[in-house]
Amino acid sequence: MLTLYDNLVSGNGYKVRLLLTLLGIPFKRIEKSVTNGETRQQDYLAINPNGRIPSVVFDDGRKLAESNAILLYFAEGTDYLPVDKFARAQVNQWLFFEQYSHEPYIAVLRFWRHYGNALTPIQEARVPELLDKGHAALKIMDKHLTKNQFFVEDRFSAADISLYAYTHVADEGGFDLAPYPHLRAWLDRVRQIPGYIPIFQNCGEEKIS
Amino acid sequence: MLTLYDNLVSGNGYKVRLLLTLLGIPFKRIEKSVTNGETRQQDYLAINPNGRIPSVVFDDGRKLAESNAILLYFAEGTDYLPVDKFARAQVNQWLFFEQYSHEPYIAVLRFWRHYGNALTPIQEARVPELLDKGHAALKIMDKHLTKNQFFVEDRFSAADISLYAYTHVADEGGFDLAPYPHLRAWLDRVRQIPGYIPIFQNCGEEKIS
Repeated sequence: MLTLYDNLVSGNGYKVRLLLTLLGIPFKRIEKSVTNGETRQQDYLAINPNGRIPSVVFDDGRKLAESNAILLYFAEGTDYLPVDKFARAQVNQWLFFEQYSHEPYIAVLRFWRHYGNALTPIQEARVPELLDKGHAALKIMDKHLTKNQFFVEDRFSAADISLYAYTHVADEGGFDLAPYPHLRAWLDRVRQIPGYIPIFQNCGEEKIS
Repeated sequence: MLTLYDNLVSGNGYKVRLLLTLLGIPFKRIEKSVTNGETRQQDYLAINPNGRIPSVVFDDGRKLAESNAILLYFAEGTDYLPVDKFARAQVNQWLFFEQYSHEPYIAVLRFWRHYGNALTPIQEARVPELLDKGHAALKIMDKHLTKNQFFVEDRFSAADISLYAYTHVADEGGFDLAPYPHLRAWLDRVRQIPGYIPIFQNCGEEKIS
């Protein structure tokens, strides 16, 4: 059975368990702490040298890391990735936007403020920058959603899964979504996708490492 | 003709002009300054709402942003992207690694130290963190290259183009590559790819905006 190295708090992990659940792909979930150094130990570095959650290991031993790369792998050939070449490029565009212009601000601030230790002085000094850049990302998304129900081809895809993961818990980082009505309506639409599971719901076959 | 909004200093722009040149795809290059606010003006935001370089505009008006999404679009169906599904997933893994764990440290420090204004006190305080995380990325790459000539399937692909762009100018950010012999040998291999062009070489049909 497919093994997912995961953390229930992680939005990046959530992307993968949400898609696997939607697809009905069975998997064994191994919970790894991201705060006690577990993901930096040799056994996990042998799976993902970058020491990040999530990664998946296939039955034959092949390994794959990076949440959005895992999404693309499993979404290909399903309803969650367009067939049209340019539409797939647009999905990719949003996935790279998510990892470069969204996650480093919205997910990082959530982690600092909600799940990590007390902020260092440098982190404290960076909070306004992270808020600014996170809001810039949310504003771009909200504007796109004024004319679109979902991010690409007006149907739910891997792009929505990726962007939903940290957007819907952005409040935990101190991001107020009130100024973004189109974004909030989209969050509601994603929650209504048949088979949807919330971020903290256990899924797969559980195995605590 | 395809239009590339670009900046000669930008490694992200270089990825695209290198691939288009290797593929023999004609394009018009429009130089945009990334330091004087040109990419944040309304005319450019209409092309890329995220205000970043590069983006491409096709003859029919379709637009695509995010360097690695553009790479994947043009590489598909060519020698620069594997056909095998898992190998493509590995390319994607390295592309997301590049944008999340490499570029934000190696490219950002290069920009701060070599092309931007004087560092702010917060930036100055972050230099050790960026050096540490950038070296962590270089170390992962060097280790992967102990057993591989290129990043995926042991042949030159979009993954190499993406990782090469900022790695080969990492010294401009203060990264010493001496500890990474396998990485340096790979840089030499990339330079020897037929059709290779260096980062600062003008290419395409030039148009200064």
